Amino acid sequence: MANILKSFISYPETHEFPIQNLPFGIFSTKNDAAPRAGTRIGDFVVDIKAVAQAGLFDGPLLGGKAKEVFSKPTLNDFMALGRPSWREARAKLQSLLSDSNPTLRDSAQLRSAIFVGTSDAIMHLPCDIPDYTDFYAGRNHATNVGIMFRGKDNALQPNWLHLPVGYHGRSSSVVPSGTPITRPCGQRRPDATKPPVFGPSVRLDIELEMGFFVGPGSEMGSRIDINHADEHIFGVCLLNDWSARDIQNWEYVPLGPFLAKNFGTTISPWIVSLDALSEFAVEVPAQDPEVLPYLKDISGTSGTYDIKLEVDLKPAGSSKFSTVSKGSAKYLYWSFRQMLAHHSVGGCPMRPGDLLGSGTISGETSDSCGSFLEMCWNATKPLEIPSDDGSGVIKRTFLEDGDEVNLRGYCQGQGYRIGFGDCKGVILPAKP
Amino acid sequence: MANILKSFISYPETHEFPIQNLPFGIFSTKNDAAPRAGTRIGDFVVDIKAVAQAGLFDGPLLGGKAKEVFSKPTLNDFMALGRPSWREARAKLQSLLSDSNPTLRDSAQLRSAIFVGTSDAIMHLPCDIPDYTDFYAGRNHATNVGIMFRGKDNALQPNWLHLPVGYHGRSSSVVPSGTPITRPCGQRRPDATKPPVFGPSVRLDIELEMGFFVGPGSEMGSRIDINHADEHIFGVCLLNDWSARDIQNWEYVPLGPFLAKNFGTTISPWIVSLDALSEFAVEVPAQDPEVLPYLKDISGTSGTYDIKLEVDLKPAGSSKFSTVSKGSAKYLYWSFRQMLAHHSVGGCPMRPGDLLGSGTISGETSDSCGSFLEMCWNATKPLEIPSDDGSGVIKRTFLEDGDEVNLRGYCQGQGYRIGFGDCKGVILPAKP
Repeated sequence: MANILKSFISYPETHEFPIQNLPFGIFSTKNDAAPRAGTRIGDFVVDIKAVAQAGLFDGPLLGGKAKEVFSKPTLNDFMALGRPSWREARAKLQSLLSDSNPTLRDSAQLRSAIFVGTSDAIMHLPCDIPDYTDFYAGRNHATNVGIMFRGKDNALQPNWLHLPVGYHGRSSSVVPSGTPITRPCGQRRPDATKPPVFGPSVRLDIELEMGFFVGPGSEMGSRIDINHADEHIFGVCLLNDWSARDIQNWEYVPLGPFLAKNFGTTISPWIVSLDALSEFAVEVPAQDPEVLPYLKDISGTSGTYDIKLEVDLKPAGSSKFSTVSKGSAKYLYWSFRQMLAHHSVGGCPMRPGDLLGSGTISGETSDSCGSFLEMCWNATKPLEIPSDDGSGVIKRTFLEDGDEVNLRGYCQGQGYRIGFGDCKGVILPAKP
Repeated sequence: MANILKSFISYPETHEFPIQNLPFGIFSTKNDAAPRAGTRIGDFVVDIKAVAQAGLFDGPLLGGKAKEVFSKPTLNDFMALGRPSWREARAKLQSLLSDSNPTLRDSAQLRSAIFVGTSDAIMHLPCDIPDYTDFYAGRNHATNVGIMFRGKDNALQPNWLHLPVGYHGRSSSVVPSGTPITRPCGQRRPDATKPPVFGPSVRLDIELEMGFFVGPGSEMGSRIDINHADEHIFGVCLLNDWSARDIQNWEYVPLGPFLAKNFGTTISPWIVSLDALSEFAVEVPAQDPEVLPYLKDISGTSGTYDIKLEVDLKPAGSSKFSTVSKGSAKYLYWSFRQMLAHHSVGGCPMRPGDLLGSGTISGETSDSCGSFLEMCWNATKPLEIPSDDGSGVIKRTFLEDGDEVNLRGYCQGQGYRIGFGDCKGVILPAKP
């Protein structure tokens, strides 16, 4: 505690973006509309392009490259450089922002070129996302959904404990926090004795997930070894895999979810490095049956992270968010390393900027679930949210137009927090 | 017949690339390694970038833009311009290549700048593929697979006749014809009473499909109306959705195919326009039950094309290809327009260069099927291919290492053919 790293920028101990975090993202401002690389500390965005242009990245890996990679409108080129370069960049930023380094601290000119108030920054996607994949790696979620639709005895499918089940998602509909989500229309079949009907989804849900971005990829026909997988993981974000349960239920046999998911996927725009998260690593649950060798992680069992997670809901017409669920990323059964090793084991090429979602993360109780489907147990147990004036309750089973959802996540360190910022979206009415 | 359009380039009447075709693609040469736009006539690639640089695109839409869009290493920018621009480009090329136009015909200098022998051209992917989706729109295929795995009475799933079932594929593993395919490793469970095993797929298959590319896309939250869908379709190619049936069978419940498909998808590199195909349009099969209004095509029922299709196999050690199946694209139940309208109806954003596969196209008999799974009825009826010297037969149920597959397709016009070129790949042994 005494030796905790401090910045000359001040912020409270509960702030999500202390000097210990320093995530990467892409931002622009009204005055300079060109998207560019940034990091975040307290209530400031640090313009990394400006840091590079001031010649401050002088390390062996980035010295010759920083001006180029950090002036791009996406992080893809930086992601491709690999973990030693990411570490060099983060260490340099940490040094420049520390209270013992006079370079920025004592230069009003540099500070004015480099610091942007967060209220002036517009956040973008961190990169072009060549491919997006979504896993299904939360055991409680898979079990809950299985019980609801197949009964307790067949809750988990036979493959679930042997491999991280996943499917390809739609990269075109991944959007940064704050982007409104239009309620999708589609086919659903509310009455199995009648033909399907077309119209707006009436069972619109969220999925509370973590996402992670691939750095250096792999060639077609090659695979990423699980014991080197961390070198390929650029960082982590929050991810809301908005889901239309009624569309999904009708369409998904036998090829999986399609229109039920591809109308929008929201991510938090700051990508937190594995280095910032490393001290919050925890053991994945004991994996029984034993996994096949390519999924065995000899680097250790601490493959997931104790990231405290929240689902916050601001019902339409209400003025404030209420927390409706509190869980943790530690409930993932499969680690990020296992997901990446599995994804590439058949030779699927991975590319810098690929996004992999974890699947819904639910805890062990209904108030720690990552979807309304589970929280309200297939619409049988409505949530009750106190109304603004406290005089009544607002009931919800699925999302209504005007509802706004925010996902939040942070790790609690000794005297600081590592957070992710908002992962927010409001529901717009379906288009006729 | 008397008035058939002729080129000053000569080729036989059975050639796949006459002046009536003029597909678009991306090529490079040894002397100029920069990928650039081209079209194909007879045994020549026409360098469209060179045509543009010579100032020959002087139409109202492309006059000011041709030099820029055709010097890009992908067709995405050209695709984004829309059908009037594609038509203007194709009409200009048709005019320049016709036997009555002296511009190229009589200029050795222009011809030497513009024509490249096909043996000197290296074909690339036509564009960056932002997202790849694969449908399941062939009724005979869906029925065959259904009978094999669920019995005759439940062959088609309840949703199949109501919507074009599809799933998101992996754009990173889409490759042009000629790219070798490494046999994937993965989990499979040959004995359902024992745990799964890991290793090379032993049921490696093909899927004979058509693919089509999206031109102008759509914003998130919007949809593409079926009656305008053709304006969003840049063109058509052959597509081989290589499939590892054993991996698929174990992994696909409940979220669909994943590693069974993402190790490689081969396309023919020349993209044939709907204008070149228009006279081969045929009615889609009568759709009963009646489809929902958003899938109703008031522009007509001629939503698919009579493209004659072949699967050619060159078994390992053999010196020649044998045709093992002959079918037609007319066996698609859902039209390209319906696939695109369905894909976007929930608001999924479409982008220029998106690739949509039709799903396997099978005819009504085992010698017109689009997969070995069907041709050999789940490995119970091996194919018998005459050996090189005619003294024996080579048996196949699924693909072996060294086997090479080529998909072929053409439309037979009055005095000419519209073809697609090769869609070829050889199987390399799995990596240990």
